[in-house]
Amino acid sequence: MRDVAIIGVSQTKFGELWDKSFRDLIAEAGMKAIEDANIEGDDLDAMYVGNMSAGLFVGQEHIASLIADHSGLTPIPCARVEAACASGGLALRNGIMAVASGFHDIVISAGVEKMTDVVDPTPAIATASDQEWEAQQGVTFPSLYAMMARRHMKEYGTTREQLAMVSVINHENAVNNPLAQFPMEITVDKVLNSSMVADPLTLLDCSPVSDGAAGVILCPAEDAKKYTDTPVYIKASAQASGTIALHDRRDITTIDSTIHASRKAYEMAGMTPKDIDLVEVHDCFSINGLLAIEDLGFVEKGQGGPAIEDGMTRRDGEIPVNPSGGLKARGHPLGATGIAQAAEIVWQLRGEAGKRQIDGAEIGMTHNIGGTGGTAAVHIMSR
Amino acid sequence: MRDVAIIGVSQTKFGELWDKSFRDLIAEAGMKAIEDANIEGDDLDAMYVGNMSAGLFVGQEHIASLIADHSGLTPIPCARVEAACASGGLALRNGIMAVASGFHDIVISAGVEKMTDVVDPTPAIATASDQEWEAQQGVTFPSLYAMMARRHMKEYGTTREQLAMVSVINHENAVNNPLAQFPMEITVDKVLNSSMVADPLTLLDCSPVSDGAAGVILCPAEDAKKYTDTPVYIKASAQASGTIALHDRRDITTIDSTIHASRKAYEMAGMTPKDIDLVEVHDCFSINGLLAIEDLGFVEKGQGGPAIEDGMTRRDGEIPVNPSGGLKARGHPLGATGIAQAAEIVWQLRGEAGKRQIDGAEIGMTHNIGGTGGTAAVHIMSR
Repeated sequence: MRDVAIIGVSQTKFGELWDKSFRDLIAEAGMKAIEDANIEGDDLDAMYVGNMSAGLFVGQEHIASLIADHSGLTPIPCARVEAACASGGLALRNGIMAVASGFHDIVISAGVEKMTDVVDPTPAIATASDQEWEAQQGVTFPSLYAMMARRHMKEYGTTREQLAMVSVINHENAVNNPLAQFPMEITVDKVLNSSMVADPLTLLDCSPVSDGAAGVILCPAEDAKKYTDTPVYIKASAQASGTIALHDRRDITTIDSTIHASRKAYEMAGMTPKDIDLVEVHDCFSINGLLAIEDLGFVEKGQGGPAIEDGMTRRDGEIPVNPSGGLKARGHPLGATGIAQAAEIVWQLRGEAGKRQIDGAEIGMTHNIGGTGGTAAVHIMSR
Repeated sequence: MRDVAIIGVSQTKFGELWDKSFRDLIAEAGMKAIEDANIEGDDLDAMYVGNMSAGLFVGQEHIASLIADHSGLTPIPCARVEAACASGGLALRNGIMAVASGFHDIVISAGVEKMTDVVDPTPAIATASDQEWEAQQGVTFPSLYAMMARRHMKEYGTTREQLAMVSVINHENAVNNPLAQFPMEITVDKVLNSSMVADPLTLLDCSPVSDGAAGVILCPAEDAKKYTDTPVYIKASAQASGTIALHDRRDITTIDSTIHASRKAYEMAGMTPKDIDLVEVHDCFSINGLLAIEDLGFVEKGQGGPAIEDGMTRRDGEIPVNPSGGLKARGHPLGATGIAQAAEIVWQLRGEAGKRQIDGAEIGMTHNIGGTGGTAAVHIMSR
């Protein structure tokens, strides 16, 4: 297996981008990544695109062909990969395999979602849950995560304020991210007093509806220095599935797929949580930011709340989490998120993250999940 | 790069399967493939599933998690890959890469589509075309392929009867395929006199709406004999993109992505069309069966019509095409087709194809396309 490196990354602004279409967004991310990697479009050998549901959001399947065509890259092989909100993480992983196997040399793994072209995105988002046993019964994602939050509060004494702190810290970080959807500070009081969505989660516990795209360019590690002085190396790429329906879990205060994928990733990289300098976690709801640091092994089960309250996950804390602003404040265009996480880690490891830079960052991790944890993808990267 | 072999295959009956759900179909295909490979479910290291649009057909994205869950295979990594009707071919190709790279040892690549749970599947199918420049203007797939047929008739003198022969030969073959949707003979007259769909294509020029699933189990070639006495080896796996919109093509009587993918496949395998003993081509409409033998290099451009009329593609012809019955008569559950094609080639190379067996078949090819050729995947396999 060949080692793989990242030589270029990109992200569009995330937000409600009324003036940009699906194809505009992905072309912009692609061109910026190509520029960042100091290559030409013709150098690309293959493309993977993470996208959850262009079919339901913009009436378009077969986006691989659309994107190759609209970007002027035909006859490049291009595949869409999908695992709900983990689609980006899977696009990254399959791009890595394409290079590692020797099938292709220079591969772009991208992610895109255009969510604001429908009046109500909720029915499309709900297709990431079990259609027959969850969605058709009226369950939506805020309510599923609300149940997980309630149970975590009961089992471990997690407080409402600790949950709110996940959002507060994300917004604190997003202020320094020019590509973030919501680069403004909020307070615990604001979170607690924002409109109720699914008790105990209020509006400011929830990631927004976003449009956006991101890209990562991969090549064999041995060639990386031809293109850049600051390659970032893939140390591990792991993925696991979990039950799609929440009621089938042994425990709803933990996401087993995160545990499986991260343990496999630590094993591949020969590392432990202590080796990780910063992590981008999948905090689609505040409770998920808290579960992530537990399930990734940064704190003991049940200790996520106190750890967050004590500032462990702040930029100057023991394990900086989501310096980008995370899904909550950077935004969450579903299929793009896993790739945007990788872009942030690359910027951090290169020392190019500006005011949100984590000093001395050498090893970073991304954690991308689909649904309530039916899929998890974990990557470890090093300078 | 490790060489890869196929050690197990499966296909469900294709048809209007009112009594089987999406999850029933894929579980059935998975279990049959596992049985055929003489392994246990626990032996599987990863799963790829080709599916065009469970989102639009059954309101379910995130099918990778659903399938792993419903099949009792969590925490196995599972990814859906999509490129419209070429989704199955891409699932096969990405499974091959996962094994070739060394990331995984035993991988199942499956395909599934449940198309009969909606009143009208046409809008979902149309999302394989360019939504903005084709589908929204009212174009559907029969009309796109009808234009390709008309132009081929004008340029090369292809006759209406020659097109009809593609369907006639497919049905001739399907009679011997117990898993085919339409195992009955038809005549040229019947094709010509069936209801008009899009001039010149009538109902019997068009592949049907189908439910179904299929599976292929892959492992490193060096391990294959541990599981089976009759492994089939992957000699080439190639893919190319083309413009998604038909009007952007240099020529609508040819599918450039087929040319690119097949030339790459011949190069990988060190073979020419003369080396291929049989081929499963993507004949979603009769014209496409004709274009395929031209674009794959079995006949000169424009000679598809006379070649088919002369019996070249019959079971006893120079290059047997679609002994399974093809998309027209075996059925075409979109995401399953690319995998079902591979299953047929494996049965043929093993000598297990019963009454439809091609004598002495040693090398087979599959040709799976998405849309009107926005994607093409070509595989070559040998005994």
